[in-house]
Amino acid sequence: MAEREAGFVVAVAGATGAVGGVLLRVLEERNFPVRELRPLASERSAGSTVSFRNVDIEVEVARPESFENTDFVFFAATGSLSKTLAPEVVKRGGIAIDKSSTWRMHDDVPLVVPEVNGDALEGHKGLIACPNCTTIGFVMALEPLRRRAGLERVVVTTLQAVSGAGRPGLEELERQQAAIREGRQAPDPKTFVAQIADNVVPLCDVLGDDGYSGEETKLLHETRKILSLPDLPVSTTCVRVPVPIGHSASILVHTERALSVAEAEAALAAFPGVEVVAENGRVPTPIDVVGRDQVLVGRVRKDLHSEGLWLFQVSDNLRKGAATNAVQIAEEILRRKLLH
Amino acid sequence: MAEREAGFVVAVAGATGAVGGVLLRVLEERNFPVRELRPLASERSAGSTVSFRNVDIEVEVARPESFENTDFVFFAATGSLSKTLAPEVVKRGGIAIDKSSTWRMHDDVPLVVPEVNGDALEGHKGLIACPNCTTIGFVMALEPLRRRAGLERVVVTTLQAVSGAGRPGLEELERQQAAIREGRQAPDPKTFVAQIADNVVPLCDVLGDDGYSGEETKLLHETRKILSLPDLPVSTTCVRVPVPIGHSASILVHTERALSVAEAEAALAAFPGVEVVAENGRVPTPIDVVGRDQVLVGRVRKDLHSEGLWLFQVSDNLRKGAATNAVQIAEEILRRKLLH
Repeated sequence: MAEREAGFVVAVAGATGAVGGVLLRVLEERNFPVRELRPLASERSAGSTVSFRNVDIEVEVARPESFENTDFVFFAATGSLSKTLAPEVVKRGGIAIDKSSTWRMHDDVPLVVPEVNGDALEGHKGLIACPNCTTIGFVMALEPLRRRAGLERVVVTTLQAVSGAGRPGLEELERQQAAIREGRQAPDPKTFVAQIADNVVPLCDVLGDDGYSGEETKLLHETRKILSLPDLPVSTTCVRVPVPIGHSASILVHTERALSVAEAEAALAAFPGVEVVAENGRVPTPIDVVGRDQVLVGRVRKDLHSEGLWLFQVSDNLRKGAATNAVQIAEEILRRKLLH
Repeated sequence: MAEREAGFVVAVAGATGAVGGVLLRVLEERNFPVRELRPLASERSAGSTVSFRNVDIEVEVARPESFENTDFVFFAATGSLSKTLAPEVVKRGGIAIDKSSTWRMHDDVPLVVPEVNGDALEGHKGLIACPNCTTIGFVMALEPLRRRAGLERVVVTTLQAVSGAGRPGLEELERQQAAIREGRQAPDPKTFVAQIADNVVPLCDVLGDDGYSGEETKLLHETRKILSLPDLPVSTTCVRVPVPIGHSASILVHTERALSVAEAEAALAAFPGVEVVAENGRVPTPIDVVGRDQVLVGRVRKDLHSEGLWLFQVSDNLRKGAATNAVQIAEEILRRKLLH
């Protein structure tokens, strides 16, 4: 354990992507005990360098051998990189923390937001999934209410930032906005199904046969798994909005026991990582959370026609929605002494 | 009636605003029988000119005397202009069609979307209100379902374009976007309560003591009045989005009798002014409706946990949400021979 006392060998697969870049910053900021950092990427991005603690490190191609002697491997890419490679980490005794959707619904894989269900890490088998960026902020807002009064049903419309689709999403918005400002036609959409500049697009991810988008289906099933409420009705519509960073959710929640606004706000404010925005008519907006780890909740009010509560929740989809949550999972594993 | 056969004297109060400008175009396009056009505005905008049928006409200050011998006066401004002046129109025997919120909830004033409740015009007293731009698209999507199966309750989150706040809203978005693209700090918000460029703001209009915004309260009460369903539960959250033109609404509706997706789509498609977007996975977005009068509805699907239906509705807030609806009201008055 001598080398471990001096820190851990940490690999980041997808180190050049939007989430990967933020992940490196979060590891630095939180002073995660990194002894050696291995930035990895697909063939396409290998050879470039990333900066970590003021040292430029060359990005190598992610291969099974990249994971020899790693303690933690963060898969920061949304794609299929982790499908074949995460098991290679586990096979070599490391812990894989995967941001992609690949492993989230596997029975053997804990799906973790540490403040909400850190317990799910107990007995893990080396592979841990980080939920979708939309799900994380959403369950952070629901869990405090659930602990106080139980959850009965939830209706939610999300307003999701383009960086939820990674760097290509950010670049597509910028390219289209630049063209429009110059009086040109916006270039055709590639990442999204319709123009996103000056527009909103009510379809995130692909449309399933049941009429629901991938994002809507993920939000339902991941929420149920994280909260261990396999039958919770969560009615979802997910919309992409022309915002670079910061996912929002407009939520109508029915608790088992009716909650007053004051009780709900108190429960939310007392929950780690959640902040209530209410004073002086202020409302939470995406730009308020950019670069921050807190999930902001505001507009808490009684539904006028039922015992439900409306709330509006925002969080930085690249930080708490991705990188920060992944690093928190690693920290929680250390705190609980669950490193193999 | 000799002069009336050659057309009508039409005044537009607020002719220089965002809605006023579109209203002039809609009168031209629809070939509304205008014999004389009088563009009016507040002191601030008087003296400028507007173009109507290729003639430049000077904008005069709106005064009671402006309404001598007018047949129709459109109040296109959102402000208080119509509060004192609309009664002056009626006093002089003209018909005032008001886009502002001033008169909408008065018992004596019909609140009209012609396709939905044209009957409400019968017995009018000279003053007709045009609903809020958000309400119009919303009731256009609800009415076909109501006629087919009755309405039980509705939950809606709106995503509203900045032009819902008129020209100042459009200019605020442009100013902030320009600053951001040039790497400068976005100028402080004036029209909206927070920066709108690269952001969404979950507060439209002012916040009431009950925690609801003016826009949310209007959407509830106007919907009930137009549909003559004074107890219909309509749970609302209204959000401003960085879109120039085109309001969207993410709607979960419960009908009295459960509707299949096919039945709902058929009812919507058969309704005048409504178009269903569904083929090939297409979804309706704001830019699809800019400059058009149709209300588009898509993403029609069964709620997974109840007999409700989700739908996503978009409409041009300056046209069907304002100018076109106002002109349609005048056309409906002529069709029903309700001119005094």
